[in-house]
Amino acid sequence: MKKINFLFFVFLACLGFQVNAQQLRSPNGNFIMDFALTPNGEPSYELRYKGKSVINPSRLGLALKSDMNTTTTFNGPDSAAKKKQYESLFSGFEIAGTERTTFDETWQPVWGETKFVRNHYNELEITLIQKATDRNMKIRFRLFDDGLGFRYEFPQQKNLIYFTIQEEYSQFAMTGDHTAFWIPGDYDTQEYNYTTSKLSEIKGLMKSAYEEGNVSQTLFSPTGVQTSLMLKSKEGLYINLHEAACMDYPTMHLNFDGKNFTFQSWLTPDVHGDKGRLQAPCTSPWRTIIVSDDARDILASKMTYNLNEPNRIENTSWIKPTKYVGVWWEMITGKNTWSYTNDFPSVQLGKTDFTKSKPNGTHGATTSNVKKYIDFAAKHGFDGVLVEGWNIGWEDWFGHGKDYVFDFVTPYPDFNLKNLNEYAHSKGVKLIMHHETSGSVRNYERHIDTAFKLMKQYGYNAVKTGYVGQILPLGEHHYSQSTNNHYQFVIEKAARYQIMVNAHEAVRPTGIARTWPNMIGNESARGTEYQAFGGNALNHVTILPFTRLIGGPMDYTPGIFEMNLPNGAHLNSTLANQLALYVTMYSPLQMAADFPENYDRFPDAFQFIKDVGIDWDDSKYLEAEPGQYITVARKEKNTDKWFLGSVNGNDSRTSKIKFDFLDAGRTYLATIYADAPDANFKTKPQAYTVKKIKVTHKDNLAQFCAAAGGYAISIIPIEK
Amino acid sequence: MKKINFLFFVFLACLGFQVNAQQLRSPNGNFIMDFALTPNGEPSYELRYKGKSVINPSRLGLALKSDMNTTTTFNGPDSAAKKKQYESLFSGFEIAGTERTTFDETWQPVWGETKFVRNHYNELEITLIQKATDRNMKIRFRLFDDGLGFRYEFPQQKNLIYFTIQEEYSQFAMTGDHTAFWIPGDYDTQEYNYTTSKLSEIKGLMKSAYEEGNVSQTLFSPTGVQTSLMLKSKEGLYINLHEAACMDYPTMHLNFDGKNFTFQSWLTPDVHGDKGRLQAPCTSPWRTIIVSDDARDILASKMTYNLNEPNRIENTSWIKPTKYVGVWWEMITGKNTWSYTNDFPSVQLGKTDFTKSKPNGTHGATTSNVKKYIDFAAKHGFDGVLVEGWNIGWEDWFGHGKDYVFDFVTPYPDFNLKNLNEYAHSKGVKLIMHHETSGSVRNYERHIDTAFKLMKQYGYNAVKTGYVGQILPLGEHHYSQSTNNHYQFVIEKAARYQIMVNAHEAVRPTGIARTWPNMIGNESARGTEYQAFGGNALNHVTILPFTRLIGGPMDYTPGIFEMNLPNGAHLNSTLANQLALYVTMYSPLQMAADFPENYDRFPDAFQFIKDVGIDWDDSKYLEAEPGQYITVARKEKNTDKWFLGSVNGNDSRTSKIKFDFLDAGRTYLATIYADAPDANFKTKPQAYTVKKIKVTHKDNLAQFCAAAGGYAISIIPIEK
Repeated sequence: MKKINFLFFVFLACLGFQVNAQQLRSPNGNFIMDFALTPNGEPSYELRYKGKSVINPSRLGLALKSDMNTTTTFNGPDSAAKKKQYESLFSGFEIAGTERTTFDETWQPVWGETKFVRNHYNELEITLIQKATDRNMKIRFRLFDDGLGFRYEFPQQKNLIYFTIQEEYSQFAMTGDHTAFWIPGDYDTQEYNYTTSKLSEIKGLMKSAYEEGNVSQTLFSPTGVQTSLMLKSKEGLYINLHEAACMDYPTMHLNFDGKNFTFQSWLTPDVHGDKGRLQAPCTSPWRTIIVSDDARDILASKMTYNLNEPNRIENTSWIKPTKYVGVWWEMITGKNTWSYTNDFPSVQLGKTDFTKSKPNGTHGATTSNVKKYIDFAAKHGFDGVLVEGWNIGWEDWFGHGKDYVFDFVTPYPDFNLKNLNEYAHSKGVKLIMHHETSGSVRNYERHIDTAFKLMKQYGYNAVKTGYVGQILPLGEHHYSQSTNNHYQFVIEKAARYQIMVNAHEAVRPTGIARTWPNMIGNESARGTEYQAFGGNALNHVTILPFTRLIGGPMDYTPGIFEMNLPNGAHLNSTLANQLALYVTMYSPLQMAADFPENYDRFPDAFQFIKDVGIDWDDSKYLEAEPGQYITVARKEKNTDKWFLGSVNGNDSRTSKIKFDFLDAGRTYLATIYADAPDANFKTKPQAYTVKKIKVTHKDNLAQFCAAAGGYAISIIPIEK
Repeated sequence: MKKINFLFFVFLACLGFQVNAQQLRSPNGNFIMDFALTPNGEPSYELRYKGKSVINPSRLGLALKSDMNTTTTFNGPDSAAKKKQYESLFSGFEIAGTERTTFDETWQPVWGETKFVRNHYNELEITLIQKATDRNMKIRFRLFDDGLGFRYEFPQQKNLIYFTIQEEYSQFAMTGDHTAFWIPGDYDTQEYNYTTSKLSEIKGLMKSAYEEGNVSQTLFSPTGVQTSLMLKSKEGLYINLHEAACMDYPTMHLNFDGKNFTFQSWLTPDVHGDKGRLQAPCTSPWRTIIVSDDARDILASKMTYNLNEPNRIENTSWIKPTKYVGVWWEMITGKNTWSYTNDFPSVQLGKTDFTKSKPNGTHGATTSNVKKYIDFAAKHGFDGVLVEGWNIGWEDWFGHGKDYVFDFVTPYPDFNLKNLNEYAHSKGVKLIMHHETSGSVRNYERHIDTAFKLMKQYGYNAVKTGYVGQILPLGEHHYSQSTNNHYQFVIEKAARYQIMVNAHEAVRPTGIARTWPNMIGNESARGTEYQAFGGNALNHVTILPFTRLIGGPMDYTPGIFEMNLPNGAHLNSTLANQLALYVTMYSPLQMAADFPENYDRFPDAFQFIKDVGIDWDDSKYLEAEPGQYITVARKEKNTDKWFLGSVNGNDSRTSKIKFDFLDAGRTYLATIYADAPDANFKTKPQAYTVKKIKVTHKDNLAQFCAAAGGYAISIIPIEK
């Protein structure tokens, strides 16, 4: 660490000679951000929180692709000779102007954890001019009470119109060997378990952190990690690095330089290895640093949303938080299949005649099976029924790089599209559409209007999309600029049809749901399904809210009651933990993923899933420590009901909470769904207790939690 | 040549030991095709015409991409060790079966050079089995009276489902150092002048044959040439190599092996360098060899169409051959611009406000200018008016790899979409839509439905599409499988909207218009526009019908009367030559490309353009020699009028024709538009004569033709 500190002081010494230094404070004064230009005109910033360094002096800028030299790689600030081979947007700058503003608004999300969101920051806009090229660029900093956001802006100008990014050099210099909660940096998937390690251990642990088995995986560096990245310093600072509003730009990963203890942005390349093709005027996404000395503040932060543009959908009456069941877990666990027949080695849409093929007898999306789910949903008050495998093409959808893999409109012979929708609607339930693309992006775009029209014809208002497999066009990645552009295309197209979107295997969200609140869910992480594919870490759900959920909700598909799965796998969680997830994994879209017959076996526990809210007026994070536990209480929207969830990590513990979030002077009936004392995720996952007690805002609770366990509480006011 | 002959005899000797030899004869017996397997199970064929060898024994087959080895290249039949690194579909075969059929039908094209087309061939289907891999493949040969077509077929089977082609090895072994009429093999353009040389000279001439200046050019080999390739042997055999029905497959080029005097197929790669991703059951396109000892037969051949599937459009009443004028030559010659304003360094659709920008004063597609063209079209009986530059985005459409370059629906402020269409319709004229994509294929597919709906709303029934610039998705080429798939997507989509398509810069056609007759035109070669961009060779139009037009009509945009262009360029052609092109360059879509005011200067010559037919009951090729001259007479559909055109190459000559194609016993008034004796493409291009004479079927004509000149005749029966 000596070297780091030395560099730091050297830098401060340099600052003494700089006229080009600017300081920005957060509204509450806890954060101080210092911007400076080095003598070579290299932009740099550092960040302090309550007097402690969070980010040591760190470089900012971008290298543009030069036609003269497209293969050389960046060699750090010392290799001056090599820099000239680039179109540099990282040095040679002077400050042409600065502008400071303060912003304070409170906005109301269409759905969310709280009824209102305050967006309060001090802003510093630095206009940089590179005289040698007559180019200018702005860096805009927004300092909130929960952290810093900054982005690059490229104004309209003569000498920077169309340009290609070779690499973005946004650095985040760490102040120590923090603990990191990380997954391998990958251009195509985030479906990994998290590794918890010191920063210095990342390189050595990369091999074990990399779990094979996904159909599209592309590691890029032995020290590359994904964002959002959660960190904790020895001094107890919690630091989260991510991005906001990633639109028509490649996804940012982070690469760790162990010598300088610095993370540097690493963008997802296109097929030529380039990192973004831009046209001025335009901006980069925001790079975000959320910081607190209390882990609960990280979970409560709305900075990522605040850095996105306001809602663009005028009439939002059709966007409805949704609790649903579905024909899905059957296929994930090997009980049934998406496909209809085993007759063909491969199928060709428009040529293969499914009506003449022999059904395989394992097809899940049959009219009768779907009716069973509709009946169950209606009986228990669910809003929707997801049906996967309803449309032709599943016989060979997977891993062939097939272009015309689905048409999104033609049902299998045993799925009666019209009757099932009518039946569902007659029972007050909506079917949820499923569009698996198999990564064939062009094919989906070719059919999307027809597919959405079919949905409107039959009354669907939500679609789950999927991107399993390598992306087509060839050579593009799940997180390339052009693919990110596609996901956004789908969201905006769906909005015009008043359709909600829940995208699986797509890029992890960056708060775009503020602007496009019809994006009600994403997968983009290792979900419950992996419990059938090799298992999730015991503490997985105590990390996801600190990482994947920073950018937006996840369709985690909880609620599994039977942990011994049809395919022989065992799900590592207690039943009480499964209930708690409906509160701890915030999402306006929640599935009860298990089979109806498993819910029928545990009606008292199932009651919580039926009761739990899906949209909220308020959220109180009561306990939080990444990798260990999360306890949150949420007040259901437009009611006085509270629901509380607590998930636990690798070791059993006792959760201690206060009910002081409740209204003073009222009495509530609390129904506590908890791990029984002998609960064990492996041997006795279904050992739970249901206990009803009266509580007021003065009460406390000490509640046992098994490893991979937890508890859930519904808290209903008792009217006098 | 000794070596070639030696190899040939060795091969024949081998055949003696083969039980696996098959022979196929053409219906008239002039062609003999021999198929054989070598002792190593390598498929091979040879072709003879009237006892003369046309194709010496030549290999057939494909190498598939093996995951174990993706970089090795084919090293010819001797490198047995290397072959194993491939998934070979070129050796180790046995014949599992053969089937012979004879086919004879006469079909009626929706538009064409003749009212009926006879499709008459003998077919040999060879089923090959590769026992080592348990794979099978068919090679289907169709031998017509005008040549040979063959293709590969991949039946449904267990061990060959999804596969990637590394390279196709269809060989065409030449029998001598023929004269070739060729353009450089290029993955992105065919817009070259033709080079006429011996085969042995191709390599040495490649550098001079390659003309720079196109915005997307990708040479692949110093001995690579495009198809259709025209050849002439010393013995006077005319041989044309091309392909038919190239659908969802990369375009085939030919690479010349000077040692073995053999052309081998060279497919256009995708971004990974692969040459096609296929799913059985499927087929390759047909590889075609049209042969005759009379060059006129090459031009009259309908083999390419016959190898395509029958018409798939049930109601064709909306497909109408069209003669048109347009706002286009103004921009090509630099008189006006496509763009509306010079205010912006670049524009962003949806953000740039054109209504607030200053018009540049050179915009061609203004309401008043378009009205002038509509008036002109109505006055002179043209069907359509093409307008380019009507829609926003032209300020920076070009060469930036811009994704969202056009929206295809928003007019510039000075183009009144509604009023102009109403005005045109009130005068019996239709506007022709223009969709320049700038190569941004995804963007076009995203907007195509909206764009076609706009066309239908306003009464457009035809669209000219354009693909100037590098293709997006990145790394794909104009002739890659995925781009070919796109062009076909547009044709089929347009057919559903009852829209005719004329694609520029797209892949050269391969007879697909038989199946999709709404594909009424293509550019896909060096058109008249290059007369303003550096010039076309004097004999260019005497070669195009032997090459580019083999696969389908070309929108050559003839009819230029003023050869000194606004940009200072000079068009190398006489005025009479320009008239003749309306007959010699067969197309159901013909433009009168010059400015109205230039036609007003030469009303007597313009009369021929007004009179000339656009669809035909019959065509008689009277004289033809590639690179020298073409004379053809055509009988207008459903009339008794004939129109004759004759174009001439580099040297002046006297054309000698007989009118014996006319009905016996009738007298016709022939109006002859010809080069005056002092006509000169450079100094006196407008020196022409118009002469009226009476002719009967017994008459002859000897007509002077200047270099780059020619003549045209309208022949109208005189009713008694």
